[in-house]
Amino acid sequence: MATITVLGAGAMGSALCRPLVDSGWNVRLWGTWLDDHLVDAIEAGEPHPRTHVLVSHDVKTYRSSELGEALNGADVVVMAVASVGVPRVTELALDGISRADALWLTSKGFCPDEDGRIQLLPDAIRTIARAHDVALPPIVAIAGPVKANECAAGVATATIFGCSDLEVARGYARQTRTDSYAIAATDDETGVEVCAPMKNIYAIALGVADGLGEALGSPRHNLKAATFARAVEEMSLFGEKLGAESETAYGLPGVGDLEVTGLSGRNKIYGERIGRGETPSEALAEMTRLEQTVEGIPATDLALRLARQVGVDVALELPLLQAVADVIDPQTPADPETTISRAVLPSLP
Amino acid sequence: MATITVLGAGAMGSALCRPLVDSGWNVRLWGTWLDDHLVDAIEAGEPHPRTHVLVSHDVKTYRSSELGEALNGADVVVMAVASVGVPRVTELALDGISRADALWLTSKGFCPDEDGRIQLLPDAIRTIARAHDVALPPIVAIAGPVKANECAAGVATATIFGCSDLEVARGYARQTRTDSYAIAATDDETGVEVCAPMKNIYAIALGVADGLGEALGSPRHNLKAATFARAVEEMSLFGEKLGAESETAYGLPGVGDLEVTGLSGRNKIYGERIGRGETPSEALAEMTRLEQTVEGIPATDLALRLARQVGVDVALELPLLQAVADVIDPQTPADPETTISRAVLPSLP
Repeated sequence: MATITVLGAGAMGSALCRPLVDSGWNVRLWGTWLDDHLVDAIEAGEPHPRTHVLVSHDVKTYRSSELGEALNGADVVVMAVASVGVPRVTELALDGISRADALWLTSKGFCPDEDGRIQLLPDAIRTIARAHDVALPPIVAIAGPVKANECAAGVATATIFGCSDLEVARGYARQTRTDSYAIAATDDETGVEVCAPMKNIYAIALGVADGLGEALGSPRHNLKAATFARAVEEMSLFGEKLGAESETAYGLPGVGDLEVTGLSGRNKIYGERIGRGETPSEALAEMTRLEQTVEGIPATDLALRLARQVGVDVALELPLLQAVADVIDPQTPADPETTISRAVLPSLP
Repeated sequence: MATITVLGAGAMGSALCRPLVDSGWNVRLWGTWLDDHLVDAIEAGEPHPRTHVLVSHDVKTYRSSELGEALNGADVVVMAVASVGVPRVTELALDGISRADALWLTSKGFCPDEDGRIQLLPDAIRTIARAHDVALPPIVAIAGPVKANECAAGVATATIFGCSDLEVARGYARQTRTDSYAIAATDDETGVEVCAPMKNIYAIALGVADGLGEALGSPRHNLKAATFARAVEEMSLFGEKLGAESETAYGLPGVGDLEVTGLSGRNKIYGERIGRGETPSEALAEMTRLEQTVEGIPATDLALRLARQVGVDVALELPLLQAVADVIDPQTPADPETTISRAVLPSLP
């Protein structure tokens, strides 16, 4: 029985334990120094506080101080902490990761390095490993339309494993698949990685369309649909600029993940507030009061920087990204309706 | 001032008059023998009974008996009747159409010919013209995520004109575009045409996911998102089999139109009922009682026939289409949850 160690006992880390246990892995779940209350709940046999679903008794939990034991002899390590924690946890776990056969990655985001250059998370992890002169095993990027609570409950879920070595992705997909957790495989690590943070940004725009409809008393479904189509196009285009395959955005990591994020979620709700007429500052203050992190806000700034870094003319090539940035600008926010409309209505052919 | 004659005074025909008037066309709106009450309302200055929006006074209305006058001197004719009415109205209007510079087509669907072969509507119209030895002008297929009431109200809407002669599509797009009605152009008539009826079928599947969530007391968002992604993939694949470009489904005609159809609409609601546990017959009876036509039901049968006609192995290549057919089968309906799940969860790579 192969052993897998999940780093991060939050919603996604704990949810992933469900298909891992069901597919026969020996599962360890390590909580960071921020996860003590989550591990407490799991060990007390209570539902996980974020997913509200019980974690299987077959999952062995580890406290932040027990990282060495958690990693000892692990065949696979899964990085499942919040993206801001990835550099620190990578450094702490580097020895265990280097001895594993693979590093899986459910954390997603853009990561600025010390010089302020933006990297996708796999590259940020590789940079850290190089700095420590440590060789990494293959990285498997995991993405797709996965709400953690549904995955944890064993409800039908489709995901995708991306690894530059396609056979590695396929092998783990076969090994981990269950009747309710289906896994596609791709060699397009970059495509999988770039769609995940971008969809949070574009979900803000989908929320704006919903909020406008509420504020104006009649739906803006045509605008929302045009926004959705434009978002998919931009994820594909931006991916290409970063070396991804254009098709990846048209599947589970792009179309699929944007759909699930646009159905609910904090980014969409934040956008809805702006569409209804709140200023970006008011909307953010309310989300903060409700302890709801809006990942799309920092992602927008980082995406703009990454786009410029690779020579993209953002206003011209990624107008919807620029529109979201303009609409959520805390100092001089642009008018949501005209700004999003102008960005998503195709210009004269 | 160029003259355009819209055939069909229903929701889409009357809605289209808004951007046509705004972009400077001289607009005529002809009602079929089924549209008398609609024309009555328009002429009485009341809101259109289907869109609940006033039709501009600049639109000149014609009764079914006035087809000749309506078509006399028209530069462009727009076919905007329900798809079942297209063959009959084409025959009646053939002379006027042949003298116009272009035939635009907002009607959408699969059309069986006399031998039972399934055609897309432009080909069905061409077949009728050939049978009457009449030469047709270029056909411009119009599609995309357009809810008629929003278009009629002048709310932000993006659409796409498809014509095998791209310059024709572009020319009319430039001529007809307004600030709130944006028009993309493509030379992929087939892609535009095939997505429109297929999205009605796939919207049933999206509705099933919603209905399952209601019935089971917890959302099935992961399933809905995987269904959405699979639907887009199948629209692209089926389009390719019919000679379309694979990319067309990834834009406004596929992704965009599926998004707007999945937000509301009768096909989705019918699917929701089935997901909640009604049999297909019960769900259809209730929709019929509410006078709600579910276009996706006949479209499913016609799509299956068309797929087989072009040599597609439906179970293997279009499993979601097959799943919808199985789930809505009135005699022996398949279980919605397992059938849709199996179709959209990617199989082992």
